[in-house]
Amino acid sequence: MSKFSYHDAGLDLETYEKTLAGLAPLMRRTHGPRVFDPKITGGGRKGGFFASLFSLDYNSRLFAKNYRHPVLVSCADGVGSKLKIASLMNKHDTVGVDLVAMSVNDCLCTGGEPLFFLDYLAMPRDDPELTKAIVKGISDGCLEADCALVGGETAILPDFYQPGDYDLAGFCVGVVERDRIISGKTIRPGDAVLGLSSTGLHSNGYTLVRKIVFDHARLNVNDFVPALGRTVGEELLEPTRIYVQAIKELLRHYPVKHRVIRGLANITGGGLVDNIPRVLPAGRRVRLHRGSWPIPPVFTWLQELGNIDTAEMDRVFNQGIGFVVITSPYYAESIQRQLQEQRIPTFWIGEVIEGPPGVEFV
Amino acid sequence: MSKFSYHDAGLDLETYEKTLAGLAPLMRRTHGPRVFDPKITGGGRKGGFFASLFSLDYNSRLFAKNYRHPVLVSCADGVGSKLKIASLMNKHDTVGVDLVAMSVNDCLCTGGEPLFFLDYLAMPRDDPELTKAIVKGISDGCLEADCALVGGETAILPDFYQPGDYDLAGFCVGVVERDRIISGKTIRPGDAVLGLSSTGLHSNGYTLVRKIVFDHARLNVNDFVPALGRTVGEELLEPTRIYVQAIKELLRHYPVKHRVIRGLANITGGGLVDNIPRVLPAGRRVRLHRGSWPIPPVFTWLQELGNIDTAEMDRVFNQGIGFVVITSPYYAESIQRQLQEQRIPTFWIGEVIEGPPGVEFV
Repeated sequence: MSKFSYHDAGLDLETYEKTLAGLAPLMRRTHGPRVFDPKITGGGRKGGFFASLFSLDYNSRLFAKNYRHPVLVSCADGVGSKLKIASLMNKHDTVGVDLVAMSVNDCLCTGGEPLFFLDYLAMPRDDPELTKAIVKGISDGCLEADCALVGGETAILPDFYQPGDYDLAGFCVGVVERDRIISGKTIRPGDAVLGLSSTGLHSNGYTLVRKIVFDHARLNVNDFVPALGRTVGEELLEPTRIYVQAIKELLRHYPVKHRVIRGLANITGGGLVDNIPRVLPAGRRVRLHRGSWPIPPVFTWLQELGNIDTAEMDRVFNQGIGFVVITSPYYAESIQRQLQEQRIPTFWIGEVIEGPPGVEFV
Repeated sequence: MSKFSYHDAGLDLETYEKTLAGLAPLMRRTHGPRVFDPKITGGGRKGGFFASLFSLDYNSRLFAKNYRHPVLVSCADGVGSKLKIASLMNKHDTVGVDLVAMSVNDCLCTGGEPLFFLDYLAMPRDDPELTKAIVKGISDGCLEADCALVGGETAILPDFYQPGDYDLAGFCVGVVERDRIISGKTIRPGDAVLGLSSTGLHSNGYTLVRKIVFDHARLNVNDFVPALGRTVGEELLEPTRIYVQAIKELLRHYPVKHRVIRGLANITGGGLVDNIPRVLPAGRRVRLHRGSWPIPPVFTWLQELGNIDTAEMDRVFNQGIGFVVITSPYYAESIQRQLQEQRIPTFWIGEVIEGPPGVEFV
């Protein structure tokens, strides 16, 4: 009679643990003094302890911070079918930046600072090189977002994923002092709507993008597109911008009690049209001025290639604006300047008006 | 020329948002007064705000709790190929309990109390009924674990998952006061090792289980197995036990400063052999006594069916013990009694000895 073992079932615990141990340096480079004891962290990455530990309050020679009424902020998100572009390009070290961006940019919208991050990576077989490339991107994203990568889970699921495929989900925890939460409730008519430029598609709409670009237009990732000045794959794999440093600097500069920063919105699936209303209080509406910001070439190229209605473009894509700051008009220009200094092109794209929550274009 | 829309690409934002809105009651039933403002929570579930908010410190008529040096505990995990059993049985309302159990039981091992939970659900097409059943299970698990389900992400990825398949990942955040962290460092020779019974396989080893049961033995989920007293599917889908209430009660009863509870280990993939050493300090080893606890029928049935070596069984499965408490021997019997009163059969399965970290059987 044949003997069965875990190894025969396609799973090798030793290779698995070796792979995960190799990820430790990529995690450690994101750890500050608040990661409680690196020796006993690691989460589902079995080299370590059962869970990851992060000190909320901290004292060290350079830093001291204590929260009086700490409110924990949490977000979960994935990268979606942008992962297919990474596979087509065989370049896997940037989708981790997208993963981190999707969650930390959401976390920012509360006025909170992202603290730490965990990932879930599911793949059909143990692949140390691929895993390392993916986690390298997550680690890069966490460094950019001032966020500690404290743990994660790598699931080997041969019966769920096709060879070459994998899925990636991320989870971010941040903190905000209770009376500094930005909920949008102080937004009033006349407020300025500032749009912070995106780096392109970010991580939304890729199911539609792939249908148009690959199925309909029959393009290949290596095809050079003059309108874009680069290849299809380079454009579609461009990492999502992380707004953490710029927005944290803004919040330090304008404390909430001055009520200068009144609303923050991360522009993801649903575009400006669906995401701005998520922070609008009752009776407030936003009017955006077409032409007040430049639409990056990738959007016009896609719209023409797929003959997509402008209303559909507005609802699926960010159209060049990845993050929105709603502010008192008195401060709008100085905020705009401050964000430009942080190398984020920022445009005064509209204003708050009275009316049912929603977005209209003029 | 044909026009493209997001809907044509297989994604319908309206159905999607309707599905997600239907999940709100399943989330709300897990919310206590610490969920900051239910109206503006929801995380990636787009009905709500950008992120979920949870008050760390709280005051209300009945409860007041403030942390002096709060350390945040976080865990990420999935359910793995146990999900395939749910599909074969077409019963999807219990894998959520497994998902919550995998993370909260890990969180407990630090001495921390789970606070809130978020999930990531990825599926090939929008399926409101299926989504609701899955989230119902997550919600049940969160209630059992005294944990708030504050957010989650539902990703529709037609090009990643086969029809009928889905993947599920979960993230748990807890908190522990810094000087109450249980790290295992006080474990000393002579300490008692108590084993808390599992409900069966819990959520590990299913790739091997499925290979043996379905591919090799050609059994069907509906086949009745006399040794198990129920069908294959009923046994394999039995939800993972959640140890939160029992362990929290134990920690309340024996505060850390008395150093009674010295180590806690969640027994998942790797079994007793690999999981107990995760909390052992240098120079400490555990000796387990075979026969000191009953091995549930599912394990002996699987071992015979697959002709699996006992050493392999010990490394892949929990063998009937889902959680381990390492304690001063003086208190072992009263702790055992206390856990039995909570309806968790508990066995004195071994002791700590000197030697290199590891587990040996006698």
